[in-house]
Amino acid sequence: MADNEFEARRASVAEELVARKLDALAVGGGPNLRYLTGFTGSNGLLLLTPDDAVFFTDPRYRIQSAQEVSCRVQVSTGPLLPDLASAAGRRKVRRLGFEPGRTSYEAYQTLQAKLGLKVALEPVPGLIERQRMLKSPAEIEAIRTSVVTNSKAFEQALARIRPGMSESDLAAELEYRMRRLGAEKPAFETIVASGVRAALPHAQPTSAVIRNGELVLVDMGAMRDGYASDMTRMVFLGRPGHKVRSIHNAVLEAQLAAIDSVRAGVTTAHVHRVARRVLKAHGLDRAFVHSTGHGLGLEIHEPPRIGKRDKSRLEAGMTVTIEPGVYLEGFCGMRIEDTIVVTTAGCQVLTPTSKQLRVL
Amino acid sequence: MADNEFEARRASVAEELVARKLDALAVGGGPNLRYLTGFTGSNGLLLLTPDDAVFFTDPRYRIQSAQEVSCRVQVSTGPLLPDLASAAGRRKVRRLGFEPGRTSYEAYQTLQAKLGLKVALEPVPGLIERQRMLKSPAEIEAIRTSVVTNSKAFEQALARIRPGMSESDLAAELEYRMRRLGAEKPAFETIVASGVRAALPHAQPTSAVIRNGELVLVDMGAMRDGYASDMTRMVFLGRPGHKVRSIHNAVLEAQLAAIDSVRAGVTTAHVHRVARRVLKAHGLDRAFVHSTGHGLGLEIHEPPRIGKRDKSRLEAGMTVTIEPGVYLEGFCGMRIEDTIVVTTAGCQVLTPTSKQLRVL
Repeated sequence: MADNEFEARRASVAEELVARKLDALAVGGGPNLRYLTGFTGSNGLLLLTPDDAVFFTDPRYRIQSAQEVSCRVQVSTGPLLPDLASAAGRRKVRRLGFEPGRTSYEAYQTLQAKLGLKVALEPVPGLIERQRMLKSPAEIEAIRTSVVTNSKAFEQALARIRPGMSESDLAAELEYRMRRLGAEKPAFETIVASGVRAALPHAQPTSAVIRNGELVLVDMGAMRDGYASDMTRMVFLGRPGHKVRSIHNAVLEAQLAAIDSVRAGVTTAHVHRVARRVLKAHGLDRAFVHSTGHGLGLEIHEPPRIGKRDKSRLEAGMTVTIEPGVYLEGFCGMRIEDTIVVTTAGCQVLTPTSKQLRVL
Repeated sequence: MADNEFEARRASVAEELVARKLDALAVGGGPNLRYLTGFTGSNGLLLLTPDDAVFFTDPRYRIQSAQEVSCRVQVSTGPLLPDLASAAGRRKVRRLGFEPGRTSYEAYQTLQAKLGLKVALEPVPGLIERQRMLKSPAEIEAIRTSVVTNSKAFEQALARIRPGMSESDLAAELEYRMRRLGAEKPAFETIVASGVRAALPHAQPTSAVIRNGELVLVDMGAMRDGYASDMTRMVFLGRPGHKVRSIHNAVLEAQLAAIDSVRAGVTTAHVHRVARRVLKAHGLDRAFVHSTGHGLGLEIHEPPRIGKRDKSRLEAGMTVTIEPGVYLEGFCGMRIEDTIVVTTAGCQVLTPTSKQLRVL
């Protein structure tokens, strides 16, 4: 991302501060900090005022922060929070916003103690997350690159699946391919679940061997230049029976119907209902135990969530997953998942990989 | 770990609750939850009372939690915190401990609102972390296995380093080898930094190519069966000059002296001073910009920290890293790091890899 993209993001948050009569916002580590500064290290804080931004880090990141961060950098030799509090004091901050979902109770107490009683700490939940939901063209391209990298890694690893390979060896292969293709790391722990183990929606790969006549669920994502991708595909070694084929068809029908229902203005709950309705027609709705999807970007799970209880509306520029699945204990689990971008008229599926049951 | 190890850990925390007159403790996700229950999923909570334990998770983890968790499991269909609050209410809990460093301000507010004003929420910082500092024999064996896996992966990948290979390709190779050898994942983002880039203490691998006549810093760790390892070694392609050799010797001398100073009863600040004193004698103390080491176990960074400001004393059964390093901007960075176990008489170095500058 160009420096001016970070500056535009900070300016947009700064406008919100003015609207809420806040003198400043304290931003902790993690994806919100990266979003506003470009910093990729593990220890940093940002104090953002309507017309100023100061970034705090420790000496390990002196050189890196000078390269990555376009606002002023202050290198602290001790903990960062007291230095942020002092900087807020020098700027006569009276109302300081903070992120209640990303600030520990302990950090909140420390900050309040250092600021003193004249400064009010105001929780500002989801301010940056809401802004992050709508991706810029540069971000959509970054996510597309991540998606394409992930799909290529899937194809390369698929060429190496053999009966007798363990789930964890296949996961290692998938992650190795992703990295060789330019990813920094997997966006989450790659799921490879074969046979009855696929009935666990979040199975970790084990030393269990992939056998002929078995279904394999692969759920994988890359993190590339900080942006996530997410895809699930089903693979079968040998000749799948009628029951496997018909369940796969039902899940695919649900996934296509859900994608078809996506466009700017639609509620996420509606998209979830569409997927659920298709599975119900196949008698599989009780086996669909999770939501239909989630936003993704700098994090693998971001707002909006696409589930029964969610009230958000889709907007153009949101990037989300669509991933209905069914889990039948003792038999199998199936899920099909793509990464898509919401548009005014509908959506664009970024994932280029075929959704058919891959029979090897 | 055997079920009875988890039960013993919960019993030990339960004793602390009685001593502090707490009716119960709420434990959030992450390593403390895994430590007390064995749960490896991403969404869980534990309510621990002096004579009872209830584990909360969502339907995705119904099957997995039944396999992993030896206490009672309650599967919630919505957010977990309200269900934990209700369970606390049914047990007439009046003083509920929580982890202030691992509970967000938002979760604290939600919990307090659900519990009502009759229940006092008491911050209990570091209770489980203190217990986790002293590793059981089974844990030390798990860490040893992780260390050995990591060292094997280093040797296998080293055999494949060639001038012209990129930093990120070498990192991919190291991580692939570790996974094939049985690790679940890297314990942190593998650092491969060549040439002047090694002067960044926490450099991420880039597409920069490793060239002949260059120093390469490799800092890697495996996560195996949930336990971390951590090692840093220096590699040189070609013939290292006098300056490179003498800086490496100085860092090695500091690392050996620090290891030599370790034994139960010694302060961590003392160990740091020993490393620093050696580097000072070589005129390199100002280039040593971080602490000498850190505990590791279920997390890659745990208490105790081994740095200037730390007041903790080493105890037998602690597992820590010893990793002095120097960073000379525009020239190079060097660090040598082992994982060790503190004993009554001294320590045992778990890392089997040679610490000599590896000349290829």
